[in-house]
Amino acid sequence: MTRKVTVAEKVLSENDRLAADLRERFARLGIFCINLVSSPGSGKTSLLERTISALGEEIKLAMIAGDVQTENDADRLRRAGARMVRPITTGGACHLDARMVAKSVDQLDLEEIELLFIENVGNLVCPSSYDLGEDLKVVLMSTTEGDDKPLKYPGMFRRSSVMVINKIDMLELCDFDLDTAVRNARQINGNLTFLTLSCRSGVGLEDWYGWLRNAVEQKQLQRLGS
Amino acid sequence: MTRKVTVAEKVLSENDRLAADLRERFARLGIFCINLVSSPGSGKTSLLERTISALGEEIKLAMIAGDVQTENDADRLRRAGARMVRPITTGGACHLDARMVAKSVDQLDLEEIELLFIENVGNLVCPSSYDLGEDLKVVLMSTTEGDDKPLKYPGMFRRSSVMVINKIDMLELCDFDLDTAVRNARQINGNLTFLTLSCRSGVGLEDWYGWLRNAVEQKQLQRLGS
Repeated sequence: MTRKVTVAEKVLSENDRLAADLRERFARLGIFCINLVSSPGSGKTSLLERTISALGEEIKLAMIAGDVQTENDADRLRRAGARMVRPITTGGACHLDARMVAKSVDQLDLEEIELLFIENVGNLVCPSSYDLGEDLKVVLMSTTEGDDKPLKYPGMFRRSSVMVINKIDMLELCDFDLDTAVRNARQINGNLTFLTLSCRSGVGLEDWYGWLRNAVEQKQLQRLGS
Repeated sequence: MTRKVTVAEKVLSENDRLAADLRERFARLGIFCINLVSSPGSGKTSLLERTISALGEEIKLAMIAGDVQTENDADRLRRAGARMVRPITTGGACHLDARMVAKSVDQLDLEEIELLFIENVGNLVCPSSYDLGEDLKVVLMSTTEGDDKPLKYPGMFRRSSVMVINKIDMLELCDFDLDTAVRNARQINGNLTFLTLSCRSGVGLEDWYGWLRNAVEQKQLQRLGS
């Protein structure tokens, strides 16, 4: 029996192989890795800025900041106090892939990392198809984008483990119903963990930090137990 | 001299050929066609809903509504009173291409159209590479997304003719500087026309309608003159 293999399948299987290598390296070193995905302007960089300020002394953080053009996000993270930041400029590509991440990872001091954020390109479609070796995907959406987004971009919400709803301080000003957003997301993925917060007002951020602390701790315990 | 042609180049050249066919058909019939692009949640469907209410009796409108999954946008447009709506569900693809549009166009009564909107998939990266036979691209961004987006997603802003800044009623509530946004966009594309508006409060919509009326009129005159 023969089977036709498309170019897209070959690219993805090569990507999966590289991602598996990354995942294995992260596991061996006890690095918890988050692939942070969202639309443009949902607040990925703002969330990381707040996280650096709050946890930068407590947890050994590193960040890979992906962007189509510019290194603006990486610059913002450095200004926020991040010690280890690697920018990836995709030069037009709509997503990060495992090869780009592997190249950046080689430039990081992995022994000095407990929590690695990969800030993906702002795009709710394409990044969902590319495993980057992360422990899990966190999908960020903001109240200003509308509560229908999980239904309209289901691939991303299906493949994410945590859904962060940002700009919750603007809830009353938008035609956004929180119950509807959560119900729509659960319809796509019944296993999602939900966090609501505002990077601007600060409300809800303590829960995010608590979730991160716990994830990092679990990962360290897994390493010791293996 | 030989030249290597990549798969991507072949796909795009086939797309360009189909798009040129569409453009020629639209020109012959005097149809002004807009490819409406933005991030998810910038307000493409809301802008079309308002446009249907305001201009639906005055201009013969038709809409092709592209979405990764669901036909929610097409349903919203029908509820707003649109007489001619065709949904395209891409089934995971991150953009519309000319083949999908040509298939939808064949199902429209083209003699009864003066203004055709193609609402693209919510994505600031991939749709910029696919000509759909439109007269021009209108890129929509909202104040809640941040004023840096033209620099970060330059391909889309470079290939657009009009930049609509939506949710202008929320300007004071966001860390969005209008001058900075315009300056960033001009840096990428010096020929952009700018419109600021709010689909919610209605401010600025008359300018949008005026711009559309003029575009449709010019297109009709071009047909008569050819």
